[in-house]
Amino acid sequence: MPGYDLIVVGAGIMGLASAYHLKLNNPSKSVLVLDRFGAPGQGNTGRSNSMFRNTFTSSDNQVLANTSIDFYLHLQNELKLDIGLQLIGYLWLLSESQVARTERYVRGMKRNGIEVEEYSVEELRRLVGGVVTNLGDDEESSVMGLEDISGAVFGPKCGRLDPEKLVRFYANEFTRLGGKIAFKTSVEGLLLGPSRKLGIEGEPLVWQEAEVKGVRVTGGITGELEAKSTVVACGAWNNELLEPVGVDGHVKAKKRQLFSVSAESDGPLLSLLHTKGFNDLGLIPMVILPKSGVHFKPVSEERKFWIACEDEVNRPYINIPDRDLDSYRAEPSYYERGVHPVLAAYFPQFRNARPESMWAGLYAYNTVDYLPYAFREGNLIVVGGDSGSGIMKGDALGRIVDALYRERGDASLYGGVPYAVSKIGFERRDVKREEWVI
Amino acid sequence: MPGYDLIVVGAGIMGLASAYHLKLNNPSKSVLVLDRFGAPGQGNTGRSNSMFRNTFTSSDNQVLANTSIDFYLHLQNELKLDIGLQLIGYLWLLSESQVARTERYVRGMKRNGIEVEEYSVEELRRLVGGVVTNLGDDEESSVMGLEDISGAVFGPKCGRLDPEKLVRFYANEFTRLGGKIAFKTSVEGLLLGPSRKLGIEGEPLVWQEAEVKGVRVTGGITGELEAKSTVVACGAWNNELLEPVGVDGHVKAKKRQLFSVSAESDGPLLSLLHTKGFNDLGLIPMVILPKSGVHFKPVSEERKFWIACEDEVNRPYINIPDRDLDSYRAEPSYYERGVHPVLAAYFPQFRNARPESMWAGLYAYNTVDYLPYAFREGNLIVVGGDSGSGIMKGDALGRIVDALYRERGDASLYGGVPYAVSKIGFERRDVKREEWVI
Repeated sequence: MPGYDLIVVGAGIMGLASAYHLKLNNPSKSVLVLDRFGAPGQGNTGRSNSMFRNTFTSSDNQVLANTSIDFYLHLQNELKLDIGLQLIGYLWLLSESQVARTERYVRGMKRNGIEVEEYSVEELRRLVGGVVTNLGDDEESSVMGLEDISGAVFGPKCGRLDPEKLVRFYANEFTRLGGKIAFKTSVEGLLLGPSRKLGIEGEPLVWQEAEVKGVRVTGGITGELEAKSTVVACGAWNNELLEPVGVDGHVKAKKRQLFSVSAESDGPLLSLLHTKGFNDLGLIPMVILPKSGVHFKPVSEERKFWIACEDEVNRPYINIPDRDLDSYRAEPSYYERGVHPVLAAYFPQFRNARPESMWAGLYAYNTVDYLPYAFREGNLIVVGGDSGSGIMKGDALGRIVDALYRERGDASLYGGVPYAVSKIGFERRDVKREEWVI
Repeated sequence: MPGYDLIVVGAGIMGLASAYHLKLNNPSKSVLVLDRFGAPGQGNTGRSNSMFRNTFTSSDNQVLANTSIDFYLHLQNELKLDIGLQLIGYLWLLSESQVARTERYVRGMKRNGIEVEEYSVEELRRLVGGVVTNLGDDEESSVMGLEDISGAVFGPKCGRLDPEKLVRFYANEFTRLGGKIAFKTSVEGLLLGPSRKLGIEGEPLVWQEAEVKGVRVTGGITGELEAKSTVVACGAWNNELLEPVGVDGHVKAKKRQLFSVSAESDGPLLSLLHTKGFNDLGLIPMVILPKSGVHFKPVSEERKFWIACEDEVNRPYINIPDRDLDSYRAEPSYYERGVHPVLAAYFPQFRNARPESMWAGLYAYNTVDYLPYAFREGNLIVVGGDSGSGIMKGDALGRIVDALYRERGDASLYGGVPYAVSKIGFERRDVKREEWVI
C-alpha cells in the first residue's frame, strides 16, 4: 500500500491552501491531494459568489479574513499574479432599525482597526443614482415588509476575486514545491486501524487506541493509500468521511443560488454598474439591501450583475450532500417571486432584468456559531464550516492546518499575525457568534 | 385541519416530561403528544441502561441531574410511586493517572455540594471481594494497556431506575390533566408556512417570515395537524424533522450495546452482586473500570448484571437513524473480544460469564459539548442532545421546555431551583464541556 506523510482530501480553497502551507513548511514531507473533480476548485469553491470582506463583528472572523485578504492583495499587487481581485467594496443599505444595530458593529470594527465608513441617506442618494430610499406608500413594498433606507455602511477592504485563479495559484505552487495532486480520484472512506497492530480479529477493539491510517480511493487511483496524517477539507462533504469513523464534521449544507443579469444593452443598468465614488475602478460596490440579504455585485468584464440573497426560509439543511452538484439547481421562480421584487423596489433599474443564467452551490454551515473550524484528533486534521465565507479566510485556514500538523499553539497568519489555533477548534473553542451575516 | 395549542413529538422521557410540565403549567392549553411506538418510552428510553448520577464536572449537568433525581426520589419516597429507583451509587475504579485527574473533579463537585467519597485502594479491596487492583505481569492485561487500580471514587446519590415506569408516570399524569397522546402515529414532517398568509404561490417566499404550523402524520392519525407551538423531542431522530425546515438538530446518534449476565447459579458472581457497605440495599454499586469505561450494574430483582462500555472506537455517528431500532443489534464478538477481557481482568468472577441476552440502543450525542440543549425558534421548541444521560435530567429538561414555551428567562427546577434557560440554548449557550464521561 503506497504511503505518504500527508494526504489532503479536497482540492477546493481549504484543501489547496492547506496543502500549500503544509508543503511549504514541511518540505521534506510527501503530500498528496485527492479530489473527485478534474481540476482545482470545481466543487463549491468554483460555484461561489467569491466575494471577500473584512467587516465582521467576530474578531476571529476579522483576523482570519483580514490577513487572508492581505495575502491575496500581496499576490496580485506585489507578485503580479492575476487572481481577478477587485477592491470594489461592500455597501450595506440599512433600514432605521439596522442603522441602530449596525452602529455597535461599526464601533467594534473601528476599535479593531477595520476600515468602515458610514453614509447618510443623502450621501447615498448623491452617490448612487436611481436608488429608492423612500418607498412611500407602494403597496407591494408594504406587503413584502420593505422598509425605507435610513443610511449605509461601506467597507472598502472588501471585494471580489476569481476563485478558480486563486486555487490554481495554490495548486501550482504546491506542485512546484513537489506536492502531488490526484484529480478524478474519489475518496470513499477513511481507513481506521489500531495505533499498535496486534493481529487480532476485529481490530481496533474497544480497549485499543485507534487512528486514521489513510484513505480508500476509487477513480484515477483505486485502492488504499496509507498516510501518517490525513487532512479532511471536503467543505460541504466533510460529514461523508468523518461520520463513519465516529467524528462529527460539524457542518450542514444549504443550497445557495446565483442569478446573472446582463447590463450590456441597458442604459440605466450600465450606469448603475459604473457608479463612481466608491473605488478606484469606478464600479458600484457589492450592494446589500435591507431585506432578506438580497444583494448584487458588478461583474464589470462581462457587463453583468450577479444577484443573490440570504436564504433561510424553507431551505433544508443537508447533512451529506449529493456528490453530483448539478442536482442542486437554481429555481427561476425563486428569482421571480423572491429576489426580484425586493431588488426592483429599491433599484427600479432592475425592473425588467431577467437572469440570463443561474446556478446553485452549497454553503457549508457550521451551525454552532457560523465560524470556520479547524481541529486535530490524533493524526486526523479537519478544516471546514466556513458558512459561506471560506474563500476570504482560506489562506489563514491553510496556515492554521499547518500549525495543527506541526503541533504549534499559534499559527503565523500573513503579515506575521499570530493566531491561537485552539480558538477555532472545538475542545477549547473561544469565538463569538458572527452577528453580521449576509 | 384539527388544531392544538401544543403538539409534542416524541413520547420518550424528553417528550413526556415536557408534555407533563407544559400541561401542568398551562392547564387551559390543548396538548397532544405523538409517537411512532405503541406505548411510552419504547424508543431509546426503554433500551437505555437507565442509570442516574449527579456526579458531573459541569455545574449545569450537576443541577439538571440533581434536581431531576430529587424529583424522582420525591415520587418514589413521598408519593410512594414505584419507579424502580435504587440508590445503589456509582463506584469509579481509577488508575493512578485517573486518580490525579479525578481529584480536581471531586474538589469541584464538593464545592457545589455534590456528595462524593474517595477510597484508597486498601479500602476498596476490603469492601469489594475479589477485585484485582494489582494486575502484576499478566501479559493479556499488558497487551490491553490495563493499569493497576490506585483508588476509587463513590457517588452515593447515583443509581438506577426503571425508565418505563418513569415515563408511564409522566404519561399518566399528563393524561389525567387532560392531555392527549396518540401512539402508533408517525410524524413525517413539520409544516412550514408564512407567519402571515398572503395566498401567493410558493409561500413562504424569501421575504416572508416563516414558522412551523404543525405536523404531517401517518398511522393512528393521518393528515395534517395544526399547532400554535410544536415541541420536537425525538431524541436521536431530531434531525429527521428539523433538517427539512432548515434547523439543525445538533445531534448525532451512536449505537450503544448492553449485555446481560446471570449471577443466578454462580456463587462468586452472586457474592459480588450482594456486596455490602455501599448502600442500604446491600448491593454492589454500578462499577466503572479504569479502561474504556467498561462498567457493570446489579439488577438484583433478576440476579443479573448488565454490562456495557464506553464505545468510541470505530463506531460511526448516525445523522438520522433508521426508524427500526431493531436494525441496531448488539454484537456477541464485541462482548467477547472487547468488553469481557477487560472485565475479567479486574473481576475474575466474570471469567466464565457469557451474556444470556444483549441489545442495542442509540445515544443522542450533542457533539458540541455533550450536554443537553433546549431552544426555541419562533413557535418551535427543540429539546435533546442528552448524550446518554437524558433520563437522569429528564425532569429538569421538561421544566425548561415549559419555561421556553411561557417565555420565562428562568425555569423553576424541582425544589424551586432557578435555572436560566438560555444557558442550554445555542444562541447564548453558556455551559462547560463535561469532563467526566462514561
